[in-house]
Amino acid sequence: MYTLFTSPGSCSFASHLALEEAGLPFALSRVNFAADAQRSPEYLKVNPKGRVPALATPRGILTETPAILAFLAQSHPETGLLPVADPFEFGQAQSFNLYLCATVHVAHAHKGRGTRWADDPAAIAEMRRKVPETMAACFGLIEREMLRGPWVLGEEFSACDVYLFALTRWLEGDGVKLSTLPRVEAHFARMMARPAVQRALAAEAAL
Amino acid sequence: MYTLFTSPGSCSFASHLALEEAGLPFALSRVNFAADAQRSPEYLKVNPKGRVPALATPRGILTETPAILAFLAQSHPETGLLPVADPFEFGQAQSFNLYLCATVHVAHAHKGRGTRWADDPAAIAEMRRKVPETMAACFGLIEREMLRGPWVLGEEFSACDVYLFALTRWLEGDGVKLSTLPRVEAHFARMMARPAVQRALAAEAAL
Ligand SMILES: N[C@@H](CCC(=O)N[C@@H](CS)C(=O)NCC(=O)O)C(=O)O
Ligand SMILES: N[C@@H](CCC(=O)N[C@@H](CS)C(=O)NCC(=O)O)C(=O)O
Repeated sequence: MYTLFTSPGSCSFASHLALEEAGLPFALSRVNFAADAQRSPEYLKVNPKGRVPALATPRGILTETPAILAFLAQSHPETGLLPVADPFEFGQAQSFNLYLCATVHVAHAHKGRGTRWADDPAAIAEMRRKVPETMAACFGLIEREMLRGPWVLGEEFSACDVYLFALTRWLEGDGVKLSTLPRVEAHFARMMARPAVQRALAAEAAL
Repeated sequence: MYTLFTSPGSCSFASHLALEEAGLPFALSRVNFAADAQRSPEYLKVNPKGRVPALATPRGILTETPAILAFLAQSHPETGLLPVADPFEFGQAQSFNLYLCATVHVAHAHKGRGTRWADDPAAIAEMRRKVPETMAACFGLIEREMLRGPWVLGEEFSACDVYLFALTRWLEGDGVKLSTLPRVEAHFARMMARPAVQRALAAEAAL
């Protein structure tokens, strides 16, 4: 049994959806961003970084989306979440997930979390202004170079698809029209047609 | 045989040092940042993201530091680069490496690569101004919560140490006195005493 610390609409949806797709037993624990609960003393005991996701496992806490996805895939190889048997294929999947984590997610964070990197309101506004451009560039690279189709890794659905879906959800809010990215758009539609995605979206909405 | 695309002083030193520590056969290929070679058409064929590191393997290219470190560890388990036999221990190592990649490295990049996230020179200067504060906060967390000692994961040396070392090198240049972080400072000294670190530093200086 796992407990996932999550906040609706955030990157933690990737870990939530991976658990759902894999059919693993889990509970969700909502971290209320509106009340700044991610910075409460209780939550900092779970994750001293003050972020979601955090996955409570029987052996302790894991943080960082690509690490959680890899842990679930390796602990439950029968779920096929990632190509864990082949270090090179696993490495390619990790390269993709790391790009989402360290570049795409970071680009997005400059819209709502600019105070991480600047104090001056004018600088924070300038970062926010550039987000549509950086997100369009990131997703342009995904569209042209990374998404093999029909799934990220090709014929096999994987946790890379789950993670891409969680970030694609941000695009319109970040000022990027999904229709300008036909392959990403088709991937998004393919994801929306999956029963596990619908179940996870409903569970998230009910939090 | 591996070829690592690298630039002196960059995060690619982590992958370089992992290869050296593991005793694996490799060649270094310098990407000349002064000439913007990372954005040349030739290099974009290696890594369309225009960044180092990139690892050329017999089966193709891998990018993203934590993915390269995991690939080397899994392909050569006898080197003990990471605890690959246990998904939870591997997950803890990945959580650490991901924090370096997605938060600490990103904080540092706001000093010299602010144009990724803003165009206005005043905003770029404001990001640069805050780097000593954000880097001190990141390394404060590593000092207090993450570095178990003597090595990152405890008694066993791992690729987490290699990666931490590569980023600790940036601290003084980022305006953070290493002496304010006694455990990180001791870790850095422990690393400097390793023959593989001395060999890798010499090879980097000769590039
Ligand atoms: N590198 C982390 C990033 C985690 C992260 O930044 N999560 C955001 C939500 S998308 C968060 O918790 N933000 C709360 C805050 O910044 O206060 C990961 O991939 O899991
Ligand atoms: N997430 C990547 C980051 C790679 C990265 O940003 N590398 C820097 C050097 S530390 C680079 O290539 N910069 C060149 C540029 O921005 O033009 C990783 O961890 O490997």
